[in-house]
Amino acid sequence: MSTDTPQTSHLSATAVTELIDASFPQIHASGRVMEIESVGHDIARVRMRLSEHNTRHGGTISGPAMFTVADFSIYVALIGRLGSAAIPSVTSNLNITFLTRPPARDVIAEARLVRVGRRLAYAEVALYSEGSSELIAHATGTYALVSSIPKA
Amino acid sequence: MSTDTPQTSHLSATAVTELIDASFPQIHASGRVMEIESVGHDIARVRMRLSEHNTRHGGTISGPAMFTVADFSIYVALIGRLGSAAIPSVTSNLNITFLTRPPARDVIAEARLVRVGRRLAYAEVALYSEGSSELIAHATGTYALVSSIPKA
Amino acid sequence: MSTDTPQTSHLSATAVTELIDASFPQIHASGRVMEIESVGHDIARVRMRLSEHNTRHGGTISGPAMFTVADFSIYVALIGRLGSAAIPSVTSNLNITFLTRPPARDVIAEARLVRVGRRLAYAEVALYSEGSSELIAHATGTYALVSSIPKA
Amino acid sequence: MSTDTPQTSHLSATAVTELIDASFPQIHASGRVMEIESVGHDIARVRMRLSEHNTRHGGTISGPAMFTVADFSIYVALIGRLGSAAIPSVTSNLNITFLTRPPARDVIAEARLVRVGRRLAYAEVALYSEGSSELIAHATGTYALVSSIPKA
Repeated sequence: MSTDTPQTSHLSATAVTELIDASFPQIHASGRVMEIESVGHDIARVRMRLSEHNTRHGGTISGPAMFTVADFSIYVALIGRLGSAAIPSVTSNLNITFLTRPPARDVIAEARLVRVGRRLAYAEVALYSEGSSELIAHATGTYALVSSIPKA
Repeated sequence: MSTDTPQTSHLSATAVTELIDASFPQIHASGRVMEIESVGHDIARVRMRLSEHNTRHGGTISGPAMFTVADFSIYVALIGRLGSAAIPSVTSNLNITFLTRPPARDVIAEARLVRVGRRLAYAEVALYSEGSSELIAHATGTYALVSSIPKA
Repeated sequence: MSTDTPQTSHLSATAVTELIDASFPQIHASGRVMEIESVGHDIARVRMRLSEHNTRHGGTISGPAMFTVADFSIYVALIGRLGSAAIPSVTSNLNITFLTRPPARDVIAEARLVRVGRRLAYAEVALYSEGSSELIAHATGTYALVSSIPKA
Repeated sequence: MSTDTPQTSHLSATAVTELIDASFPQIHASGRVMEIESVGHDIARVRMRLSEHNTRHGGTISGPAMFTVADFSIYVALIGRLGSAAIPSVTSNLNITFLTRPPARDVIAEARLVRVGRRLAYAEVALYSEGSSELIAHATGTYALVSSIPKA
């Protein structure tokens, strides 16, 4: 990854929310499940509200739902850092480890940008259950900042 | 992982489908998107049908949807190999690399069980677009075979 | 992973060094390259001294050497936390991302235990070059705490 | 990753060995441990000979040694495919899962290039013990094909 860190234009949680809503209106088709709680220079905190779509029998959160909020929280952190230039970014790798079976509660994902280069960004994400300080999952992800990935 | 491979009771695609349908009737709440096409001794092939839920603007498949089918295909392979004993298995790690931007077509996930121990199973998954032999993503995953993961 | 955290018997850097030296005298056959600088409740800091074995042409650190110190720093943190009970632990997964080409200087690995269960422990590691606060690599690792891995 | 596959100039095992020996004469300072057995269009097979440096007490192979041969086998496959243009390639990620405790025997690493783009290549590696068909470890790796990674 390059050390030529791009221009940063740090945005607020509200600004990032508006930018994503404008770019992906369909993201809230089944209700507003993801809520961007805060965005900092290299961090973002996203709440995934409990819904029938992300819960599973026995009262737990589905793995794909945890993947979704982990991935999304990195995307939010990137937009917070880089502004609309990060909108076309795409995930190139996401590695998630599930540490404990979470209860059926909101999930909080805290992403931290570890390195933002010209072409690639690398981040880590800690996932918690609402009201608990114990991690339920941990992820690392790499995003391609400019989508040079052609159609197959 | 242990080499004490558990008893195997290889099931057909139909038998695995019935077992999963009986255990998770809610999985098809929004329509039958995942179709188990074939199950072998250590492989499974799952088709994720194109739907409004797994496509994104610009005509591509969402990353979380590809995660979902990759994860599910390993689960199917485990049930094919171990029978209903594998139903309570849970993902402990999934690492997915997106190789190219897929077109808006059905996704085929081919899981291969690399190692099945007493407590852990490790598999790899190749993801293709319908009608193409080029990989769109590749994943590796570890499942905990007996859910000893307590509630948080 | 289990939440039944085992008994902890937090050791000092000196005590961990002595324990490892006694268990693996051959580790210093080619000189004392790894130095345990500090050990806390869930962290460990290890310095890998520059040597002809870990440098590469052009004045950089080899990838395998960075893997080695990342892996070792998790092991040190586990022994610091669990005492001699952690000596037979073995790595079950290590995922390392190289973020920048490091200069030919000592490498500092800071491991943090994210979760320690009965059977598995999960940690993350930040790698720095001596005298720099910029990460050169980041790793996550899973250790099997009791070696139930049989000989092949 | 890009689909613009670069020019391929497939080399033999002998040609790759000579190219690597010329570029990294110091690689054999402690004896010739790595032997390139075969190279194909997108595969490479490397043998890591047993030595005092890669064995551990109790008669097993060290984790870092398995990382080293996994990483090296991908590098060999890339040079086999791309020729000397791949010499400056560097590992950007390597994820290795240890499946069983290997005996103190030669290790065989079989790398397969899954995707080779303009800037990144992605491969998987199966590791065996000499004389056994059971995997001892499995790895996936991403290489940056042109070293755009600046000095820290």
